[in-house]
Amino acid sequence: MPVNNPHLKPFIPPQRVLMGPGPSDVPQRILDAMQRPTIGHLDPAFQDMMEQIKSLLRYAFQTENPLTFPVSAPGSAGMEMCFVNLVEPGDKVIACINGVFGGRMLENVKRTGGVPVVVGDEWGKPVTVSKVEQAFRDNPDAKVLAFVHAETSTGAQSDAKSLAALAQKNGVLTIMDCVTSLGGTPVLIDEWGIDAAYSGSQKCLSCTPGLSPVTFSERAIEKVKARKTPVQSWFLDLNLVLGYWQSAGKRTYHHTAPINPLYGLHEALVILSEEGLENAWARHRAMHEKLKAGLKDMGLEFVVEESARLPQLNSIWIPDGVEDASARSTLLTEFNLEIGAGLGALAGKVWRIGLMGHSARQENIDFCLKALRQVLQA
Amino acid sequence: MPVNNPHLKPFIPPQRVLMGPGPSDVPQRILDAMQRPTIGHLDPAFQDMMEQIKSLLRYAFQTENPLTFPVSAPGSAGMEMCFVNLVEPGDKVIACINGVFGGRMLENVKRTGGVPVVVGDEWGKPVTVSKVEQAFRDNPDAKVLAFVHAETSTGAQSDAKSLAALAQKNGVLTIMDCVTSLGGTPVLIDEWGIDAAYSGSQKCLSCTPGLSPVTFSERAIEKVKARKTPVQSWFLDLNLVLGYWQSAGKRTYHHTAPINPLYGLHEALVILSEEGLENAWARHRAMHEKLKAGLKDMGLEFVVEESARLPQLNSIWIPDGVEDASARSTLLTEFNLEIGAGLGALAGKVWRIGLMGHSARQENIDFCLKALRQVLQA
Repeated sequence: MPVNNPHLKPFIPPQRVLMGPGPSDVPQRILDAMQRPTIGHLDPAFQDMMEQIKSLLRYAFQTENPLTFPVSAPGSAGMEMCFVNLVEPGDKVIACINGVFGGRMLENVKRTGGVPVVVGDEWGKPVTVSKVEQAFRDNPDAKVLAFVHAETSTGAQSDAKSLAALAQKNGVLTIMDCVTSLGGTPVLIDEWGIDAAYSGSQKCLSCTPGLSPVTFSERAIEKVKARKTPVQSWFLDLNLVLGYWQSAGKRTYHHTAPINPLYGLHEALVILSEEGLENAWARHRAMHEKLKAGLKDMGLEFVVEESARLPQLNSIWIPDGVEDASARSTLLTEFNLEIGAGLGALAGKVWRIGLMGHSARQENIDFCLKALRQVLQA
Repeated sequence: MPVNNPHLKPFIPPQRVLMGPGPSDVPQRILDAMQRPTIGHLDPAFQDMMEQIKSLLRYAFQTENPLTFPVSAPGSAGMEMCFVNLVEPGDKVIACINGVFGGRMLENVKRTGGVPVVVGDEWGKPVTVSKVEQAFRDNPDAKVLAFVHAETSTGAQSDAKSLAALAQKNGVLTIMDCVTSLGGTPVLIDEWGIDAAYSGSQKCLSCTPGLSPVTFSERAIEKVKARKTPVQSWFLDLNLVLGYWQSAGKRTYHHTAPINPLYGLHEALVILSEEGLENAWARHRAMHEKLKAGLKDMGLEFVVEESARLPQLNSIWIPDGVEDASARSTLLTEFNLEIGAGLGALAGKVWRIGLMGHSARQENIDFCLKALRQVLQA
């Protein structure tokens, strides 16, 4: 054989405490679920499970949308699914940018041939509703409003309810990124009137990464069905994906679903259902308060002002004189603790401490504060 | 809460014997690997594992291509990654179609704005090399040749070596689907001179579904870098994905990799490395001969002629008087055995019996033949 056999050994990962911006700690129950026997993607037993996942996701998203399911790929693909289906070439899209992930929305608008109207806000601030109001006045021909509910790059939460209300008043569709909010703070798809939303499995749902829960309103589906141009992606074309994820008994093969990861997501959603959404939100809030008190004791300051702060993603300024990379490296190698670096404009300036899903518990907070104290005193 | 809690229970899948067109039986070692603790996608330990996966995949693909890695989504996304990067609007693409998956290639060409030239062959036959030769004569301005090495919908194997040689002679790039061949029959990327190839984790690698190994030649990367138009997909843009999968130490975040599924793929590739590629190919061949003898004894006939038959995917005509769906349903519910239905033009007419990866072993063949005998005699 021209290319040699590398003869490598099985990989045994270290056991970390995950308090970055995701993945978060994965409960053993979810890991156990992923180890169960693989069955076929058209097996009736699997199709029953798909229906259960849809039902559990409707609860998590607080929506009655029939088209609520996990995309077979990470959150970036869920984002792309929303844009390639709902934006046609020439469509004007008001895109709100207050961090990295708003910037990705803009990139998606451009690549689908949409015409972006950017509403910019400072990183670490929420989207300013009055600016969006002005953008609607300036662009009566806008077709879509796109914004990030919970900016993972900064920890800022925007007022999704008011933004969605503006979109409805102006008769446009809303695309919302709720990657970091779903399961951690209220995401009320139907109450707010969101038309398309995408999330990730590895944040407040505490599952392993790789799946992107999405939901689409009837209005969104109408738009997809009325398109004059084909959806540019075959893999993400809702018209085709619908055939696999629609009601049981009528499924047609589209692609081979990621069976075992879906076992994991099912278990993650069962755990959320056992705890109850309100209790999960309250836990994230309570744990945030405890972390906040501990950080304050150490003199550490938050990037985001209290009123817009996400409980599950705590961005703090790196203290003067502390070297970002080496401090995080010490946390990882000496404490097995992962916290997140800053992204984009905030790289090297902030740390992001995640309290998402299973990571949002007292022992993690105690451990994180202790480790931080030691590293900062060193 | 307006949307009620469904209060569902954990899902315990049945234990099946998987002898369809994928997923194939997953060895316990791979399932165990997927259950290991989740770590971060930028963790140095994870980055080491990524390098190992790349090295193991280069061995499986028999290539020195530095850009060899698993796409974080199923084979359909690997396919789309090849087309959206290597086909620019207006590029003429010779697309060979002899089954469902060739048809998907055509769909990809259209959605990227390429100009397809279709070379059609009957389902169940390999691609006719002389027809492709003629297509090159008729289309001296062609930029890409696309074909399926192992048609999963029929079980026919095409002469990849001759087709790639034609492409090279005519100075065009080659895109090859080797979803069902990788690890089961020889796939010799460098020796044949293939520029882009995509596969799936759940076929002869016997991993769980959800990942798509791909490899790109230097020539392919040059084409991507020289594009005049942006890649239409953000998630699948090689220019961006490269930043994450390139050499260790310089990685930049693109999307959150599916950590635990990648543990599984790593283990699947270690198992392949332990067995050795030639031994794996020989095993698939030997098991096919045994299954063939048993099917012949029962009077069952193959769809594909012997010279083009894939050992790992055995399409047989459903005998007269046997009802497709009810027979497969009996196999599934009474024997826990999954075999594949026909797809597209062959739906209701053929069954597809997979002998892929861990499913290609004596006990599976004995079990499958016994079950088939009982169901067909009923």
